[in-house]
Amino acid sequence: MNILVINAGSSSLKYQLLNPETQEVLAKGLCERIGIDGKFTYKPTGKEAVKEADVAMPTHSEAIQTVLNALVDPANGVIGSMDEIGAVGHRVVHGGEKFASSVLITDEVMAAIEECNPLAPLHNPANIIGIKACQALMPNTPMVAVFDTAFHQTMPPVAYTYALPYEYYEQDKVRRYGFHGTSHKYVSQRAAVMLGKPIEELKLISCHLGNGSSVTAINGGKSVDTSMGFTPLAGLPMGTRCGDIDAGILEYLMNKHGYNIDEMLNILNKKSGVLGISGVSSDFRDLEAAAPQGNQRAQLALDSFDYNVKKLIGAYAAAMGGVDAIIFTAGVGENGPDTRANVVSGLEYMGVKLDAEKNNTRGKEVDVATDDSKVRVLVIPTNEELMIAMDTAAIVKA
Amino acid sequence: MNILVINAGSSSLKYQLLNPETQEVLAKGLCERIGIDGKFTYKPTGKEAVKEADVAMPTHSEAIQTVLNALVDPANGVIGSMDEIGAVGHRVVHGGEKFASSVLITDEVMAAIEECNPLAPLHNPANIIGIKACQALMPNTPMVAVFDTAFHQTMPPVAYTYALPYEYYEQDKVRRYGFHGTSHKYVSQRAAVMLGKPIEELKLISCHLGNGSSVTAINGGKSVDTSMGFTPLAGLPMGTRCGDIDAGILEYLMNKHGYNIDEMLNILNKKSGVLGISGVSSDFRDLEAAAPQGNQRAQLALDSFDYNVKKLIGAYAAAMGGVDAIIFTAGVGENGPDTRANVVSGLEYMGVKLDAEKNNTRGKEVDVATDDSKVRVLVIPTNEELMIAMDTAAIVKA
Repeated sequence: MNILVINAGSSSLKYQLLNPETQEVLAKGLCERIGIDGKFTYKPTGKEAVKEADVAMPTHSEAIQTVLNALVDPANGVIGSMDEIGAVGHRVVHGGEKFASSVLITDEVMAAIEECNPLAPLHNPANIIGIKACQALMPNTPMVAVFDTAFHQTMPPVAYTYALPYEYYEQDKVRRYGFHGTSHKYVSQRAAVMLGKPIEELKLISCHLGNGSSVTAINGGKSVDTSMGFTPLAGLPMGTRCGDIDAGILEYLMNKHGYNIDEMLNILNKKSGVLGISGVSSDFRDLEAAAPQGNQRAQLALDSFDYNVKKLIGAYAAAMGGVDAIIFTAGVGENGPDTRANVVSGLEYMGVKLDAEKNNTRGKEVDVATDDSKVRVLVIPTNEELMIAMDTAAIVKA
Repeated sequence: MNILVINAGSSSLKYQLLNPETQEVLAKGLCERIGIDGKFTYKPTGKEAVKEADVAMPTHSEAIQTVLNALVDPANGVIGSMDEIGAVGHRVVHGGEKFASSVLITDEVMAAIEECNPLAPLHNPANIIGIKACQALMPNTPMVAVFDTAFHQTMPPVAYTYALPYEYYEQDKVRRYGFHGTSHKYVSQRAAVMLGKPIEELKLISCHLGNGSSVTAINGGKSVDTSMGFTPLAGLPMGTRCGDIDAGILEYLMNKHGYNIDEMLNILNKKSGVLGISGVSSDFRDLEAAAPQGNQRAQLALDSFDYNVKKLIGAYAAAMGGVDAIIFTAGVGENGPDTRANVVSGLEYMGVKLDAEKNNTRGKEVDVATDDSKVRVLVIPTNEELMIAMDTAAIVKA
């Protein structure tokens, strides 16, 4: 069964048509500048990519129609008709406490997703627009919602409760939710396959390191703690996000500079992270180029990032009472041998030994620990679209 | 040489007269409600405590005069004259980046301490008032400032740099400072004595757990990371302080409830922590009484606290590449066998084994690990006054 995977943002829409059984990707692409001057990218597997500018897509509805037209196009299409799309899997950022797993979209589910909007005001409304546009164009195709937060709903209260007045949890739903759940779930399942052990018997620490980054403790296949929090701002320093900081800093800077809270959060979200430290770039490749040329702040940004990943690995090993494997995934995790080496350096005391030669790898599934390392170190390219398609197919078939 | 140790707050003043060589405490006590209706407590060692209400102390000056009068009082005093006070050691909360150790107070030093006021607006001005009042009354007695932050000035940039725009560090001095330095320094030195090893060879994790709590990684006798941050709000959940939270929570709650930033910080400082989670009390003894009677939120508050201490131990072991000893100190750390047991449970993977029988101890210096535990677990009562007196004597004699 082919699954169309949709990731709708406020003015963009990523899509991929794939078969989760064969893992074959038929086509993928991107609609950008929806409501502005519509750009469309379409890449059928094995053929040239098509890029079009000034495509009429005033709303997400025309964007999705453009995607469907391309998929069934007699010349460049990959399927004969829309009937060959068995289901649509939608990435939804926030499922609150209502959704601990992916779910078939019904009117009730839509209402529940809308109730989560205040928790992700920038993301969930866009996801909902994408779902509604799809429903209108494909009324007979089942749709599934796959949440970034769902995988983390297994966290125990000690991991998700903030030390705040308890009514903020009960009435305002303030708690740690965590994000990147689809990625952490996917790589943890792949890790179990690579290690040849049932996931129920494994203690894993999954490091999703990209422009946005999070680390998750996965015990027996279940998320038991994760570094992102109520929002995706918390935890590690990221491309432009500050990660964990002292809340007292907000009061100090707001009073000193006259910022209001939204201006302050904009700085913490958009101008901080490794960009803020380095002053160079939010892109780790730029920092890795600048640092050897003597840019000390670029070096400090990289070192700070690595140091904080290392501390989280230590923290989560303590939380789980040990660890069987550390997983590196996403842009920096898959393609950054130096980052991986720095992060696990000094962890010999807990049984981690990196094989420098094996670690010289990018974008492939490899165990990069030495043969005698007690703790395995795994590089696993993430594949959120495949995970969404697998969840979607499983729910539609059930 | 007798040292008078002064810890001046905005309307209170703690004092202790002691001899750092013999470690003998001659007298100690407290002035409270300075500027209101003056309460005075004086306890000469080996004699009854004296408590007086409605003592005229409109300013810190009269408070200190009251202390000095009591110390030389023919009936209840402990010294013959003020000449027997060799020096005064003042606790000062914030030394910024200027002070990496204790220092003899000069006019220049006073100016530098005043420059740190914006970093600790509630504490440093009170400390300064205490110093000035003492100087006026004892013009010929040398005075030493001992900073809560100084011990942590050895932290490397990866530990103290926040992932914020770098100008907030360069121009606004926003960085991790850490607090409780005098306590962490004292117990780390005692740990080296207990272990019979040079402190330069030891990796220690010091858990100062009280109403305010912090954990410090001490490598070779130097603080290399600590859980409090720019302010004492960060890190662990405390009696009423929230510890680490997602900065996104401030924006969400402020916009939802219409708080301004100072109201928000007041909630995070005064109504959060284990008080906020439990709704019962900020005092761990109250929580330990309520939890066994079925109060689930009291239990959650205790569990959250223990869990976060455990994670910090894991994080700092990773940061240092292992740990030789974990130290528990301050009210909860010294007197909480259950807290200690919960914190180190599950850390066997890194070589920690607690001896349940030895751990059944309160307020004494004891190694509570099993004989075959690779990592030692030490209970060490803190003594900040003694540390201040030792630093003060060393500087005056130098």
